[in-house]
Amino acid sequence: MSEVYAARRTRLRERCNAGGSAAALVSRPANVRYLAGAAPHGAVLLLGRTEDLLVCSDPPEDRPAQAGPDASLPVRALPGPGGDPAVAATGLAEAQGAESLATEDHHLTVVRHRAMRSVAPRLHLTDLGQAVEQLRVVKDEEEISCLRIGAEIADQALGELLESILVGRTERHLALELERRLVDHGADGPAFATSVGTGPNSGRRGHRPTDRRVEEGDFLSVCLGATYRGYRCEIGRTFVIGTSPADWQIELYDLVFAAQRAGREALVPGTACRDVDRAARQTLDSAGYAEHLPALSGHGVGLEIDEDPQLAPAAMGKLDACVPVTVEPGVHLPGRGGVRIDDTLVVRPEADGGPELLTITTKELLAL
Amino acid sequence: MSEVYAARRTRLRERCNAGGSAAALVSRPANVRYLAGAAPHGAVLLLGRTEDLLVCSDPPEDRPAQAGPDASLPVRALPGPGGDPAVAATGLAEAQGAESLATEDHHLTVVRHRAMRSVAPRLHLTDLGQAVEQLRVVKDEEEISCLRIGAEIADQALGELLESILVGRTERHLALELERRLVDHGADGPAFATSVGTGPNSGRRGHRPTDRRVEEGDFLSVCLGATYRGYRCEIGRTFVIGTSPADWQIELYDLVFAAQRAGREALVPGTACRDVDRAARQTLDSAGYAEHLPALSGHGVGLEIDEDPQLAPAAMGKLDACVPVTVEPGVHLPGRGGVRIDDTLVVRPEADGGPELLTITTKELLAL
Repeated sequence: MSEVYAARRTRLRERCNAGGSAAALVSRPANVRYLAGAAPHGAVLLLGRTEDLLVCSDPPEDRPAQAGPDASLPVRALPGPGGDPAVAATGLAEAQGAESLATEDHHLTVVRHRAMRSVAPRLHLTDLGQAVEQLRVVKDEEEISCLRIGAEIADQALGELLESILVGRTERHLALELERRLVDHGADGPAFATSVGTGPNSGRRGHRPTDRRVEEGDFLSVCLGATYRGYRCEIGRTFVIGTSPADWQIELYDLVFAAQRAGREALVPGTACRDVDRAARQTLDSAGYAEHLPALSGHGVGLEIDEDPQLAPAAMGKLDACVPVTVEPGVHLPGRGGVRIDDTLVVRPEADGGPELLTITTKELLAL
Repeated sequence: MSEVYAARRTRLRERCNAGGSAAALVSRPANVRYLAGAAPHGAVLLLGRTEDLLVCSDPPEDRPAQAGPDASLPVRALPGPGGDPAVAATGLAEAQGAESLATEDHHLTVVRHRAMRSVAPRLHLTDLGQAVEQLRVVKDEEEISCLRIGAEIADQALGELLESILVGRTERHLALELERRLVDHGADGPAFATSVGTGPNSGRRGHRPTDRRVEEGDFLSVCLGATYRGYRCEIGRTFVIGTSPADWQIELYDLVFAAQRAGREALVPGTACRDVDRAARQTLDSAGYAEHLPALSGHGVGLEIDEDPQLAPAAMGKLDACVPVTVEPGVHLPGRGGVRIDDTLVVRPEADGGPELLTITTKELLAL
């Protein structure tokens, strides 16, 4: 794996050099992990003029072991407690003879940035911007394989829940049970806070589970994901409780299903991100639900659960092959509830069979 | 409750005015919650020249209900997605006629700060520093009551775990089971990632649970906490598995117990924070474990699990009454394991009976 991380650092270094910086300091944890294989708490990565270094606040023996750190990358631990690795790394960059250092200004706080300026006043600090996030958008097959395993785990956890009795249990209990099952099946942990919504809470994006109990006739919507080797996927499904869904439930479900399918079918390399959003959104818009739609129809996933690209009306850019995204339209009607259907897919050329669906739990309307 | 939040904002306003700022922008979520009663995702609080406002990115109906928001505080939602409430609030501060605005530079990123400067170029941005964190150090009885209930919940969850069979179960399962029990007993959720360490992993601060199974003869150390109405407490205990602890285990346990007691007994209003640390640390130092000690012996708790004051060798300041802190010395011997004992207590005057122990699970060395 070491070569993978070294190759990623080389690509970043080329970008930095093209931008006029001989050195870069990466502080955002997911970015550190992407380039170094691990991100011990508080660690920063210095891409130096003469040497790359992982700078940590704790001595290595106090840090819990992490998956896949890059053994070829030298680690420098701060001598005592309370020091800031970003400030120390800035001093090291200057000592290596760099004249400018590109930093992640969307992650560094004003106070840290000031301390970095004052420790190396001759060093010119520039903004690295989202250069690492951009490198992270297109995944390699190793990364996709982690997402695929995570999706299998989420499918298993969800499938087991559906076999159990649901009526009378609270949203909070169901969410906890799902998270336990994710770990049982080998996840590092949940990819985000599991959302379970019943009745009037169903269909609401990011709903935090409450003590409301599942009742006969409810919509039940569930959104969960597994983290596997750091990679985070997402699946969302909506079910109906009881034997016979009401007409409005069937109509709303069919509509959201059609919108989600339209979004999935738009996942073709070269398609504008906003066009994927429009494909999903216009189905719901034209049925009169424009007021009840979330701000986006999907987003990238990877080392973080919400990455570029955004599938939203004002999104810029086009889809590339090997970009994993969610497609997750939904409608929530205040006081009544609603439907969300959410898959993680990988954009693939049509010659390779089109979008690869990672979350394969059925999207039929199940009556449980 | 509304008056409590209004009174807190008045105290902060007085500090700001004394520092020469007519307005302040609070962005750190725990600080927003402390002053406004709730912190919807991304929301910031403007203490304006003419009016206080909670500025949110989402329209209120999309936000999940939260405990105890201050109904007297006007809420302003941004019209569309993608806007930054901090930038919008900066514009509102200028529109209210403020000439300077104090901001939380230890929380704002460089990018946000730049955007705030450019939206209101005539407004002078100053650093509010940790003014709100300082207000949060001394708790009122309502806050302490939330911590007390959280501690009871953690004690219950731990007590139930001890009644179950432990040998053969993994650290990860035990941690998940504890978190489920916390929620069962009414916690909002865990106060931090529950830590369970067995055998060589025992006694390690912040150990992330692994798939190692509990074995006969192991030390088992557990650290957990409940969040109750936003307030976070912490308890840590170490047990021995099997009927007869080894001599080294008994000796190490007695030593850490003595250190922890010394730390607890030093919790007197007016005592220097570093002296509490020294009380706990010197017991372990003089037994020859100086190399194996964590950087601090305890810390404040409240809306965040790690607040001021720090009980550490270089800490400044003295303890006040009504400050809740942890006392959590430990020794971890690489390859062998170790012991940590961790309580949450409230500093009280001796006339009121001295420090109030919130986490009351026994600290005898239990053989399970």
